[in-house]
Amino acid sequence: MDTQQLAQAPHDRLAAYLGKDLEQVNALIRARMASEHAPRIPEVTAHLIEAGGKRIRPMLVLAATHLCNYQGARHHHLAATVEFIHTATLLHDDVVDESQQRRGRATANLLWDNKSSVLVGDYLFARAFQLMVECGSLRVLDILSNASATIAEGEVLQLSTAQNIDTTEDQYLRVIRGKTAALFSAATEAGAVLAGAPEDHVQALFSYGDALGVSFQIVDDYLDYGGAGDAIGKNIGDDFRERKVTLPVIRAIAQADSEERAFWARVIGKGVQNDGDFAHARALMTRHGTLESTRREALAWSDRAKAAIALMPDHDIRDMLSDLADYVVARLY
Amino acid sequence: MDTQQLAQAPHDRLAAYLGKDLEQVNALIRARMASEHAPRIPEVTAHLIEAGGKRIRPMLVLAATHLCNYQGARHHHLAATVEFIHTATLLHDDVVDESQQRRGRATANLLWDNKSSVLVGDYLFARAFQLMVECGSLRVLDILSNASATIAEGEVLQLSTAQNIDTTEDQYLRVIRGKTAALFSAATEAGAVLAGAPEDHVQALFSYGDALGVSFQIVDDYLDYGGAGDAIGKNIGDDFRERKVTLPVIRAIAQADSEERAFWARVIGKGVQNDGDFAHARALMTRHGTLESTRREALAWSDRAKAAIALMPDHDIRDMLSDLADYVVARLY
Repeated sequence: MDTQQLAQAPHDRLAAYLGKDLEQVNALIRARMASEHAPRIPEVTAHLIEAGGKRIRPMLVLAATHLCNYQGARHHHLAATVEFIHTATLLHDDVVDESQQRRGRATANLLWDNKSSVLVGDYLFARAFQLMVECGSLRVLDILSNASATIAEGEVLQLSTAQNIDTTEDQYLRVIRGKTAALFSAATEAGAVLAGAPEDHVQALFSYGDALGVSFQIVDDYLDYGGAGDAIGKNIGDDFRERKVTLPVIRAIAQADSEERAFWARVIGKGVQNDGDFAHARALMTRHGTLESTRREALAWSDRAKAAIALMPDHDIRDMLSDLADYVVARLY
Repeated sequence: MDTQQLAQAPHDRLAAYLGKDLEQVNALIRARMASEHAPRIPEVTAHLIEAGGKRIRPMLVLAATHLCNYQGARHHHLAATVEFIHTATLLHDDVVDESQQRRGRATANLLWDNKSSVLVGDYLFARAFQLMVECGSLRVLDILSNASATIAEGEVLQLSTAQNIDTTEDQYLRVIRGKTAALFSAATEAGAVLAGAPEDHVQALFSYGDALGVSFQIVDDYLDYGGAGDAIGKNIGDDFRERKVTLPVIRAIAQADSEERAFWARVIGKGVQNDGDFAHARALMTRHGTLESTRREALAWSDRAKAAIALMPDHDIRDMLSDLADYVVARLY
């Protein structure tokens, strides 16, 4: 590996390694998002799919199938499937969150309307299942239908945990599995199953995807309180203003005395926030070591991802996936 | 068949015949709409599922499997699948249409919120696919994923045909197939496939479900202009006020002179409606024989449904399905 390669982010190295496959996946995505009769569908889909997402989920599928020496031709279908499921959930998320921006562009619900986002999302979800059926594996279908249920359940759970200061760490973990880890782990597990990998490799790839996704989401939630602001590409304090009950908040509340608890009940539970409240929240988190323990939690999940993938045979892709688990937590430093 | 049975509506006779199976389907629906972690899910689902729908789609599945002498135990899963897909589309429809009432009760989007309706719909759709995977047939999965895509595509198409006076009969047919016929025909076709029926029986049951659904929807659209009002359980003129371009409108526009075309462009295209416009629309439809030709179209589809089912072997259920095709158009008289 030369210096230039080392300097590249691991997902860019993966993209370079999987280049030809990714092109075919993109061609398949474009072909399948077409609708002869309802031109609104490809318009809305293209707006989101061509906006330059990293295609991390299709890459996880392709990485898993390569790592398991898959010789067939259905991995592109599986990769397109997970991207469609992801895109469908983004369309619905933006309706649910009333979002205005995604990937630096106006959201579909703003450019068209909520109706189009809901229905085009449904269409993409159905298209995903069609592609999956073409993979010809009931076990792959089982994995992805379970992941879809976990995603939706996590989203509904999030509706009731938001603004609820009694949210537990177990509930938080369910929410972030639905948000990120369920589709990551389904991508890597289904890739291994499609390749006919032995059970211990299937399990290793499942655990890798799950731990990578959980780690990624905890880092995101850490940075909203512990980050430096503009360097992280999102506004620090957004979660606080939106009254999300994330891990740093849950752990700060767990250690709160009665006065602190009244503070959290006011700013998160009731949503009454004044100048200086966000700084006070951060100060409480520092006092109780909450930010540091959240950071350690993210690192522990990253370590689990690396340990899981270490069980796989020696392979360039294995090393890139391991580096990806490091990269995800590099934002913590 | 005694007099009492003859007096019953065919779907009530079907429900009586399939009683034990329907109970098991209802038990399965209740079990699978549960969510251990997000209680909002069964609350929203129960509101709609327990509201006393006729379970016509699960009955079509069970009727098809019985008619094809199915001996297995997965027909309940298939029947629950189609009811879940149907319920998911109702939840999303009510968000898209901003509906306030469904089956005589306040809609979920009104009682909870749009977010819950979107996400619980997604959850039920995922649950439907899980149930389908348990049926263990890739061909059944293929049929139902295709139907799901047709449903969503029809809904998106409807967004662009609404208020568009250039809508063609072909587009209209696609919209109503998405709205009703696609899931009817998927229910009967998938039932036959699950039962391992010969191809001509699979095709017959597909055609029956398709024609029954198309007929049903054309009758609905006829009654909105040609009906007698309160006898039909919906307000006459609703489609006109909502500027829907249904078959009676398409055929009236096809025969319009330039003055009449300007009328349709104003009331449907621009949505400028004054007192007396609805009566004038009905008068134009009578003048051009549009209502009569719409009525004949519905009857022709009902006949197609009966012709398709006539190919099946002699069976009580075959006769009830045939009667159901008559019953659907009986509202025309």
